[in-house]
Amino acid sequence: MNDDTYTAVQYGLGPIGSRIATTAHETGFEFVGAVDIDPEKVGRPVGDVAGFDTDADVTVTDDAADALVADPDVVFHSTGSSVEAVAPQLREIASAGANVVSTTEELSYPWWNAPEVAADLDAVAEENDVTVLGTGINPGFVMDTMPAVLSTPMASVDAVTVERVQDAGERREPLQKKVGAGVSVETFEEEIATEAGHVGSTESVAMLANALGFDLDGIEESIEPVVDEGGAESDFVTVEPGDVAGLRQVAHGSVDGETVVTLDLQMYVGADDPHDRVGFEGDPPVSVTVEGGYHGDVATSAVVTNVAPNVVAARPGLRSMLDVTTPSFTRQARR
Amino acid sequence: MNDDTYTAVQYGLGPIGSRIATTAHETGFEFVGAVDIDPEKVGRPVGDVAGFDTDADVTVTDDAADALVADPDVVFHSTGSSVEAVAPQLREIASAGANVVSTTEELSYPWWNAPEVAADLDAVAEENDVTVLGTGINPGFVMDTMPAVLSTPMASVDAVTVERVQDAGERREPLQKKVGAGVSVETFEEEIATEAGHVGSTESVAMLANALGFDLDGIEESIEPVVDEGGAESDFVTVEPGDVAGLRQVAHGSVDGETVVTLDLQMYVGADDPHDRVGFEGDPPVSVTVEGGYHGDVATSAVVTNVAPNVVAARPGLRSMLDVTTPSFTRQARR
Repeated sequence: MNDDTYTAVQYGLGPIGSRIATTAHETGFEFVGAVDIDPEKVGRPVGDVAGFDTDADVTVTDDAADALVADPDVVFHSTGSSVEAVAPQLREIASAGANVVSTTEELSYPWWNAPEVAADLDAVAEENDVTVLGTGINPGFVMDTMPAVLSTPMASVDAVTVERVQDAGERREPLQKKVGAGVSVETFEEEIATEAGHVGSTESVAMLANALGFDLDGIEESIEPVVDEGGAESDFVTVEPGDVAGLRQVAHGSVDGETVVTLDLQMYVGADDPHDRVGFEGDPPVSVTVEGGYHGDVATSAVVTNVAPNVVAARPGLRSMLDVTTPSFTRQARR
Repeated sequence: MNDDTYTAVQYGLGPIGSRIATTAHETGFEFVGAVDIDPEKVGRPVGDVAGFDTDADVTVTDDAADALVADPDVVFHSTGSSVEAVAPQLREIASAGANVVSTTEELSYPWWNAPEVAADLDAVAEENDVTVLGTGINPGFVMDTMPAVLSTPMASVDAVTVERVQDAGERREPLQKKVGAGVSVETFEEEIATEAGHVGSTESVAMLANALGFDLDGIEESIEPVVDEGGAESDFVTVEPGDVAGLRQVAHGSVDGETVVTLDLQMYVGADDPHDRVGFEGDPPVSVTVEGGYHGDVATSAVVTNVAPNVVAARPGLRSMLDVTTPSFTRQARR
């Protein structure tokens, strides 16, 4: 191992965690440990589980302490969406003196929904001189960091709308099920709309509002079905006309009762113009479109890996994407 | 003055400097001094010269030392394009203990073209515990910082092309003259193409390459006329068919002889689809378009003002937009 190589531990080896570990390995991070509770994975080499080739003799353990003893520069953490649920894991990592980049959606900007957990994690991180940060493509980039950066050339910002339209038919089957593709409107109302939906919208609204200097008095979310008109189909589902092709989840942040931040996420089978779009009212008005939209699965592991050097170098404490140096693709992670 | 108000000095009160001062004043910076060598401006209140209302009794001086004695948090500097020419001014500001945000194009990323001046400024800034940074819309944002950020969700980047197409007919008359609108192709080759053209392309190529981890072996620039076909016209000029409507300036950065960074700037009267566009080859490919393109004049003063708090908080030394925390619009500048 070179002295300038970053050492890493992968904590959580599900589909996203495995992809992160693979991308990180290709970017030059050297894995010195890996954690997962799945008995099928424990004891196996990390590259074997995650899907990359390495000579390194690092096996998966179900005891985080065993992995953290290698004193990694950074832990890639991907075990859950709830910041409350994963806080003990994050506390253990930080206490061991390692920086953390996590895909925990609620960690991307926890000061709005979970200020006490945030304060606690901030204190633990600061005490141990490490940085803890949550990120990913959404939340973490496309509906918060990216629009924040795109506002830099504006003299005033009155309101912002971010729209992310994805063709769920191009995604994995579990995601198509999760958005309700193929069910009736009635079933959608009973089974899909009552679920949490996409986790992280509130965090993105709060983070983007903070970047733009809006002092929000509230954040509201709604989930509604996108009803199919023409019989959309994917490899996994055929949607009958009048049934549900997917969902639309909208989150609003308001100041004095006026909506100033709108995040509009649409994921449905048959979306024929997938895109990410950011529109600002202000001086000057700005409209930016990402053709086709950022790819969900590649993008999350890329954001996590690419921002890791910025996190290692950041001021200790619990931080957001707004607090690290300008993020970008990282070709080769070196100190 | 509140304790949390940033104090500022405006250094250079030409059209851009005046606009910066006005935007900064509206953003909450408190001007404690102003510098310009124009005898028409010296001795007058800064708000009067720049175009904003203030009760503060701050007048323009032609001696920078007189203004710097007020010990501002930040100096907005806008006097020239050449880093070599303005280096003595920047050295004086830094030595007085003030941070600097400058529109000097070559300062946006001086390590490629002027490494010795850069090293000297870095040393002076570090010694005096201040940060010096050059920025603006271009160079500074649209062809360097923005594409860098847009690469964050990518697992690999093979090449990037940034295209900025502006309708020169919508801009000020001097700019239309500068791009050669209305002259013959012969006159263009003799008088326009021999000028420097847009200053800052080399800096943007070098900065973007650095962000993307390309170790460039060379940067090449070319300027060619955009020849009018249909008789474009603006308030100031009518272009005869076959004459020049404006210019196209392309800068390439290469690795092992392969072009990996292309910046394509087109400014001509009658451009009917003005836009900024970033296209990446890589995994996944990414294409992002700013409809109409960022507005040149508003944008430069906005970028300078918006990033100033990030510059004040940055690590001391000569820095680029890649080294400050994630930039965004700043509603109210407060410590």
